[in-house]
This record gives sequence, structure tokens and C-alpha cells, in this order.
Amino acid sequence: MGGADTHARPEEKVFPVSDKIKGPQGVIKVPYRILMGPGPSNAHPRILAAQTLPLLGHLHPPFLALMDEIKAGLQYAFQTESKYTLLISGTGHAGMELCLANMLEPGQKVIIGNNGIWGERCADMAKRYEANVIELKCPPGQSFTFEEVKKAVEEHKPALLFLCQGESSTGVQQSLAGMGELCHQNGALLLVDTVCSLGAVPFFGDAWGVDICYSGSQKALSASPGTTPFFMSQKAHDRLTSRKTGVHSYNYDLNLLGKYWGWYEGRFYHHTGIVSLWYGMREALAIVYETGLETMWKRHRELYDQLWEGLRDLGLEPFAENPADQLPSVNTIKVPEGIDWLGLNNYVMGKYNLEIAGGLGPSAGKVWRIGIMGFNATAANIALVIAAFKDGLQSQGFHGAKKTAS
Amino acid sequence: MGGADTHARPEEKVFPVSDKIKGPQGVIKVPYRILMGPGPSNAHPRILAAQTLPLLGHLHPPFLALMDEIKAGLQYAFQTESKYTLLISGTGHAGMELCLANMLEPGQKVIIGNNGIWGERCADMAKRYEANVIELKCPPGQSFTFEEVKKAVEEHKPALLFLCQGESSTGVQQSLAGMGELCHQNGALLLVDTVCSLGAVPFFGDAWGVDICYSGSQKALSASPGTTPFFMSQKAHDRLTSRKTGVHSYNYDLNLLGKYWGWYEGRFYHHTGIVSLWYGMREALAIVYETGLETMWKRHRELYDQLWEGLRDLGLEPFAENPADQLPSVNTIKVPEGIDWLGLNNYVMGKYNLEIAGGLGPSAGKVWRIGIMGFNATAANIALVIAAFKDGLQSQGFHGAKKTAS
Repeated sequence: MGGADTHARPEEKVFPVSDKIKGPQGVIKVPYRILMGPGPSNAHPRILAAQTLPLLGHLHPPFLALMDEIKAGLQYAFQTESKYTLLISGTGHAGMELCLANMLEPGQKVIIGNNGIWGERCADMAKRYEANVIELKCPPGQSFTFEEVKKAVEEHKPALLFLCQGESSTGVQQSLAGMGELCHQNGALLLVDTVCSLGAVPFFGDAWGVDICYSGSQKALSASPGTTPFFMSQKAHDRLTSRKTGVHSYNYDLNLLGKYWGWYEGRFYHHTGIVSLWYGMREALAIVYETGLETMWKRHRELYDQLWEGLRDLGLEPFAENPADQLPSVNTIKVPEGIDWLGLNNYVMGKYNLEIAGGLGPSAGKVWRIGIMGFNATAANIALVIAAFKDGLQSQGFHGAKKTAS
Repeated sequence: MGGADTHARPEEKVFPVSDKIKGPQGVIKVPYRILMGPGPSNAHPRILAAQTLPLLGHLHPPFLALMDEIKAGLQYAFQTESKYTLLISGTGHAGMELCLANMLEPGQKVIIGNNGIWGERCADMAKRYEANVIELKCPPGQSFTFEEVKKAVEEHKPALLFLCQGESSTGVQQSLAGMGELCHQNGALLLVDTVCSLGAVPFFGDAWGVDICYSGSQKALSASPGTTPFFMSQKAHDRLTSRKTGVHSYNYDLNLLGKYWGWYEGRFYHHTGIVSLWYGMREALAIVYETGLETMWKRHRELYDQLWEGLRDLGLEPFAENPADQLPSVNTIKVPEGIDWLGLNNYVMGKYNLEIAGGLGPSAGKVWRIGIMGFNATAANIALVIAAFKDGLQSQGFHGAKKTAS
């Protein structure tokens, strides 16, 4: 080798490097925030620590062993024994699109429970995949009754039913009671979004007859954003393998992704696993397993009670009026008449480094949102949130209708 | 609130949590490896350290400021002043699909330079997006001449031309000389894959007339896998906004993604930014800017010379025979007759914790691959690789044809 001329690419012009654009300099600075909005919530320190571990190759044996650990942890978290379990390299939005991309073929019917932003986005995505989209709607702040869903499924006989267990834009929990059986009696598969609910409230993937499901890394599982827990049932796998048309997206194609995750013999290089975040998710799932799901559910429910006791005491009311609709992990609080919601958010951020979030989609401008999620689900954080609301409201001259004074 | 009954979801059956599936337990253990394959390469410790920083909300002002820093760092790395620059939440495979998803409409012609696995995968993806795919082929280990490409572009007048600057499966660098001008004279846009090349060899996005381009985080930029540098030209943006059909994928839709990254007024919640990895990429880009591109290119080229001086001395030869085709960041080395390549890989992994990779796609079983990338591009690592090859070959009884003995 030797001389520089051997590296030359014929005629490729090399210019002086332009310094017109200045890149970042110095070491990154990130302020500390207590993230009590709908997510990301603060990651568990053990998870963040795992993200500094040295990288491994995406097909190295120790990395494949780690993938098996992740798969087992996801099966526990989802309460499923399905081998068709994996971690998606992408956020919840990618999880939603992946499920639709694999389960729907052009022209097939899908019923989408749309009572907030996730139903809206799901309908948008399903239309892009040329499905025949039937939107089932109910007022924001409410969930669908079994009867409403039953009527729609029996009438339309869809290939797929989408329900969001935790609609974070309105703080609504959707009961899944009877939905799996209903779908299977009518030739449909049941797709459930558990992004904001998994680990915070009961979920039984197999026993409830859920066919395909994605969740979130940065909610009650307390990991960083960027990966998405996933499983599907044997029924859903059968649907996948009997498709008449190919899956439109390469990256979301479960036929290939499953070959990376060891669903079949051998391992296929589908993409490069997101090494650092998979380390983090392995830790997140170990924490879930070590803690136990029942303990997690109980803790979230108790803190939800504590939060609302404090908030009601301040004269605040839930946006989701029916207690049976309320999602413990994302709580929506009506902004009282005359209060500047954004002013309050900015006030508590400035004084306490505390994130209280505003609304989203149908709840924008109408509510605050408080997350109770995983590592952040502590009595200390709930006490802080209540104190911050009290201070923030008083700073705007609001003293509420104290129950004790009535 | 209060009583537990208010939380009940009608008829939703709660079971005892099954312990049939055991999740992971205890703290994660990851062995240390010196990753001298085609990537992931070892991440810079400063980047791994940034991945432990506390999370921020994906639309918080300090996070938006960080996104602006990342954008500026990417503009420097790509040598572009285009505002249409962002970091994709996904790996290089997602970057490839995103570019095709936005630039191609069903039936449009695309010429794909296919001389290795990336051309192959690009052709697969373009077919999924219903493009009219014309594959331009040349033998593995070679790059396309300008004349070959010119003939194809003038004959087919495609909407898009795909070239891979660094074909990592064969260790081949594609000269981009004249390609931008050629495309623009023929109504085509130029799409370039720089996953394995950016930061290691010269690249001038604007001056070379590149229209749309993605790169890799975990090669010469030394960050973790999971994010993908991206930019496109004004011409490419015009193509996007004049599409007759919608973009098929929600997650890859640049119309929406650009609204998150501040290409236009306001910020849109398209997905949740991959906070920890974006911190890491901010550090990676700061390191690139602080080091300077010219210094990086020079270092990679010098180490490439050192590597090959040592390898030739051992009697080893490059797979890419023409020096003008050789990619300094991924080096392909012919496996000599009678040598067990996998045995050598396992031997050096066992003894030195050192990754030497095998081939991929058209080079599988025929070559070893050695990466010279970013943080790993040091004289110490090159010396180790040469010593490990010498030891590994000798352990199989191979003593080569020493130049000094001829």
C-alpha cells in the first residue's frame, strides 16, 4: 500500500472543511427534573447505570443470551407464555405501526376504539396501510362499554379490534373484560396498547385472550424511551404466516424480526440491536420480576388513592368522572375556571424542578396530567405533587372548595 | 375516592400472577470486548457516560435546545447547511427505509447500485414501497465506475439513484465523484448511504450534490446503535412536498418528523425522542467537531496504511483488489486456502477478547472484516489486530508468504 495516491477516488473533489456550521462543544449539561407527567418518567438509576456498560456485537453469544433474558422478562410482564415475544427497536409509535403493518392487509376491516390521541393515531396509521377503518368513538374521559364494542364487532366482523388499555391523553383505562372472547367468537384478533398501563395495573396477556400487544419502556417500567415490549399469540402468528400480501415495511416485518429474536432456528441479522437500551430494558425487567407484578399493581393503586385524596382536598376534580374509567398511571385533573394551567406548570417547574404536564389532543388546555409510574411511584413524589399544586394554585389566588370547610 | 371497589373494572378477571415464566434476576453482567469488526465499534466512554444522565421530557425546552445542538453537529459532520437535518430514532436499516419511503412513490424508477448486502436490502425495501427497481450490479469487491452509473441514469432517467459510500459487506468504497451533477442533469435525486463511512473518509454533502443521506451512529461516530444521522437537500424537500401520494409509514413520514425537529414553526409530538441515545449522539458530534473532520479522516487513513502494512507482511491480501475501491473503515481480508476463518475468530476472542468478524452476504466465508472506526481507531488497536492475526494464523500452522523472504 503506502502512498496517498492509492486512496484517491478518481475525480472526487475534497474541499477545505467548512466551519460555517459550528457543532456542539464541551461536555453535555442536563438539568435534573422530577418527571411526574405522562412520561418519560425518571428512569431507575440501576437502568441508567446499565446504559454505560461496554457495547457488544449484535449477534455475539452473550448478547443473544441477553435477548433471551429480555424475552423471558417480557413474558413475565405480559403474563404470556407465547414464544412470539420480543423487544421492538423503536418507541411506542413504532410498536403501534408494527402491529398494524403485520396484522392488516389492504382492504381488511379494523375497528379502532378512538377516545383519545392513541385511537386517533392508530386510525391514521391503519389508513396508511390501506385498511378499511371503522372508528368507534366515545366522549373523551370515558371508556367503551362491553356492549358498545360487542355491537360494533358483531356488526362489522373486523379482522382486528384495537383498544388502548391506558389512554394517556384523557387518563382513561379501558376494561378488557370479555374482549378477547368476543373477538375470537367473531373471527377478529385483539390488539391492545399497554404503553401507559403495563406494570401499573393488572394485565394477563394469555388469560384475557390478547392476540397482539405493545407497551412502553419509559412509563411504569422505568427505562429510557426507545424500545417497545411486544408479544403476539399463536393466533396472531397464524394470521401473519397466512397473509396473501407481503408486509409493506422491512423494519416492521415480524417474519424477519422474529428470526433475529430466535422464534425459529438460527439467527438473522435483521437490524443492529439497540445495545445500550436493551441493557437498560434487561435491568427494567429484572426489577419488575424481583419486585413482583402484584406488588407493583398494589403500589400504583395505593398512590393513586393518596394522590386523589390530596387533590380533592385542594378542590380539584378528575377529568375522567367515572372512577371505573380512571387510569392510575396517568391522572387527568380538570383545570378550574380562571386558572392559568400553563402558569402553574411553569411555576412548579421553576420552584421545584417538577414536571406537571398539560393536556394532549382532546384534553389540551382542559387538564393537567400526573403520572404515577414505576420508579417515580413513591409516597414522597405524591406528597410533593400535592404540595406543589397547593402552592401553585394559591399563587394564582385559588383556594378551592375545601371539603373540610363544606 | 377511597374504597378499592371504585377501581374495579367490571368483570375484568384478575388471576394470581403466574410464576411459570421466570424473569431475569440480579444485576446485568456484560463482558468487555474490543470490537474491531464492522460495527458496533466500542463507544467512546464520554458518550456512554452521557447515557446515564437523568431523562428529560421529549418536548421540554432544554431537550429542544439539545436537538438544535445535534442538528448543528450533524450539519458539520455531513458538511451541509441544509436545515432539513435531523437524527432518526432507529438504526441504519430504518434510515434506509425512511429515505425510500419519502422519496419514492409507487411506480417511480429507482436505480440501486447493488454490489453487496446494502444494495440488496435497499432493493428489497424499494420493492416493498412498490417502486420500479432497476438494480445495477458489479462483482463483489468492486465499486461502480462513473461511466457505468452514467449509462444507467441516462438510459432509465430514474427518480432516485442509490449508492452506498461504504459497502461494509465487501469493504468497498464507492466514489461519488460527479454523481450529484449526473443525477441533477437527468432529473434524479442522489441518495447515499454513509453508515460505514461518515467521519472516516471525506464527505461533502452540499458540495457533492447529495440530496438525501443517512449514516450510522456506531461506526466512526463511536456512539451506541439506535439512532441515525440524516439530512436532505432543498431539492429532496421539494420532492417530498410535491408528492401525489401520502407517505405510507407514519413513523418514517418526514412531513411529521420535520415538525418535531423544528424545520418549521412550532414543535409537533411525532414520537418520543430516544433521550439517552440523543444525549450520547450530542457527545459524539461534539467529539467530531472538537477533533475536526480533517484530523479524523487523516487518522483513519494512516491507520489503514498501518493495518495493511502489517497484514501484507503476514501474507494476507485484500478482498477489494483495487486500492481505489478499498474502504478504510471496513477492511476485508481474504481467508487463505486451508485456514479455518471462524476458528481464528474464536481463537482471538478467547485469548484477547478481540472481535475479528467474518464476511456477510456475498463475502460470507471468504473474508475477515476489520473495522477502523472512531474511538477504536488507534495505533494500539491496529497493533493488537496484527499481533492477533499473526498468533491466530500460526496456531493453524500458517506462516504466509513473507514479503521479506521473497
